[in-house]
Amino acid sequence: MKNKNRSIAIIEEPMLRESVKLNKALVFEMQKAFTLYSSGRADVPPIMQILSRTNGGQTCVKSAISTELPGYAIKISSNFPGNPAMGVPVGNGLMTLFDTVTGEVDSIFLDNGYLTQLRTAAAGGLVADLLARKNAVNVCILGAGRQAQLQAEVLMLVRDIEHISIWGRDVDKATRLAETLQSELNIECQAVSDLPAAVSRADIVVTTTTSDRPILMKDWLRPGQHITAMGSDSPSKNEVDPGVAFLVDKYFCDSISQCELLGELHHAKTYESECGAIQPEELGNVILNKCPGRTTEEEITFMDLTGIGTQDALIALCAKEKLKRL
Amino acid sequence: MKNKNRSIAIIEEPMLRESVKLNKALVFEMQKAFTLYSSGRADVPPIMQILSRTNGGQTCVKSAISTELPGYAIKISSNFPGNPAMGVPVGNGLMTLFDTVTGEVDSIFLDNGYLTQLRTAAAGGLVADLLARKNAVNVCILGAGRQAQLQAEVLMLVRDIEHISIWGRDVDKATRLAETLQSELNIECQAVSDLPAAVSRADIVVTTTTSDRPILMKDWLRPGQHITAMGSDSPSKNEVDPGVAFLVDKYFCDSISQCELLGELHHAKTYESECGAIQPEELGNVILNKCPGRTTEEEITFMDLTGIGTQDALIALCAKEKLKRL
Repeated sequence: MKNKNRSIAIIEEPMLRESVKLNKALVFEMQKAFTLYSSGRADVPPIMQILSRTNGGQTCVKSAISTELPGYAIKISSNFPGNPAMGVPVGNGLMTLFDTVTGEVDSIFLDNGYLTQLRTAAAGGLVADLLARKNAVNVCILGAGRQAQLQAEVLMLVRDIEHISIWGRDVDKATRLAETLQSELNIECQAVSDLPAAVSRADIVVTTTTSDRPILMKDWLRPGQHITAMGSDSPSKNEVDPGVAFLVDKYFCDSISQCELLGELHHAKTYESECGAIQPEELGNVILNKCPGRTTEEEITFMDLTGIGTQDALIALCAKEKLKRL
Repeated sequence: MKNKNRSIAIIEEPMLRESVKLNKALVFEMQKAFTLYSSGRADVPPIMQILSRTNGGQTCVKSAISTELPGYAIKISSNFPGNPAMGVPVGNGLMTLFDTVTGEVDSIFLDNGYLTQLRTAAAGGLVADLLARKNAVNVCILGAGRQAQLQAEVLMLVRDIEHISIWGRDVDKATRLAETLQSELNIECQAVSDLPAAVSRADIVVTTTTSDRPILMKDWLRPGQHITAMGSDSPSKNEVDPGVAFLVDKYFCDSISQCELLGELHHAKTYESECGAIQPEELGNVILNKCPGRTTEEEITFMDLTGIGTQDALIALCAKEKLKRL
């Protein structure tokens, strides 16, 4: 018997943008990513980091495998901060999908990060649906990049949002994004410079920056809010005042062990000896009814998102399905 | 300024087989892989392992980066032992080449392991050239697979080989390989069943199997021989009697830390308390003249090869150069 190698689908970014979109189905698909992880039904190896000695460039490899999914993804993403000066995007990379049964390469997505943006956005939507008050109408987003836009879009899918404030270090960029969202979503969207006031007013606060020092302060928070911090995915990144972890009523992680290494929890934990123990729970366990999510209108809930490999497997499998139907 | 993503070269196995071949230039190219590694001029992150819970399938991700190379490779290789029963090859995977300056994806090689076979073969040739006696003529190869064939071919490039013995668990396969080599190389090649005699007769012994228990015994060795063990690349694999490590005069590794985890050294070290300390040296330091290689005709030299990420970067860069010239 002559063994034959299977043919590999290679899909480029424009095709992916056309066929895989942010919608409610994708949001709820992410439930599986969190429950597979938190119930121990997926194996997630430590992230591989390839660091350049000279230019701050870093490349990460992430994966996860579960016998309950027909495929596992291996995602390579690079981030080279010096690129824009050379006319090259900061982020590059690709996602590969392998067959769980045979280990064969099934698909290669030359997505330039598009699938990661989508699965991160979808996770943010799921989190808000699970943890924000049902009557949440006012949103404040920190950051004015692509993920800020996607967060605005996804929150519209899960709550009847009426007002979105955008805060960015680059005021022009924040203004442009607010204008774009206003015309796209048909609700009131504005760029804000008074961040403390915008945060205090919001029912849902989302941080989407790459900041390495806190930009969201604990004194700005008020009862009933939900906060999702999604910018930090490395030990040096830190968007949220560590005091927030000790103020909020419930602290959730996608992966506790990963948030301790790469998330806001990483920074907050260094204050535990003076401020008391943080008791994080995983979102997967909320979905599995193993622990409560929000239980009152007054609680402040906090979600620390660092991104897990099961999300990549699921978005890659979704993309494969969509493309099959074309 | 609108940043643009670079176009990515995607190269399939037949094209690679046609353009990248095992030759002396490739053998000596591997010197750089060992010296970059041993001199600390490359960073090699720990291997990522993605393990299936149900079918013994494993997927490894390897990489290495050096500012002295224009590209870094990230190699994904899967090994699913149950595949042949389904008509699917055991090994699958791909190699990707990234730009060291920008982190952009440069090339994707859908090589089904071909480039790995080549760089492993080239390393075996380099090792023999550095460590075997100049007058080595008699070779014994354990294993009858693709790497056994490549080792026979590469040894012909570095020594005036006159006789090759092939030993395999599958006698028919060994016989077929001996016949193939005999007609290809125009020297005496034979399949052997008396392995102790064939090993004792050989000047160069190469182990290329996936065995998980010793098949090369220390009592078979004699002065002046060189042994290269290249089969073991995981903690459970073990081709060589641990006693060999204590018998040989010089024990070399591609990477000491990796051989302690994945190589023959891993098994031998558990006997150090009863047999004395093994003092391994890295081949890169022999090339850099930081430590001696073979110094007498009577010494027995031993090489523990587990494969390092710098080899992948170099073979990927070689492939890219070759293809550019087509």
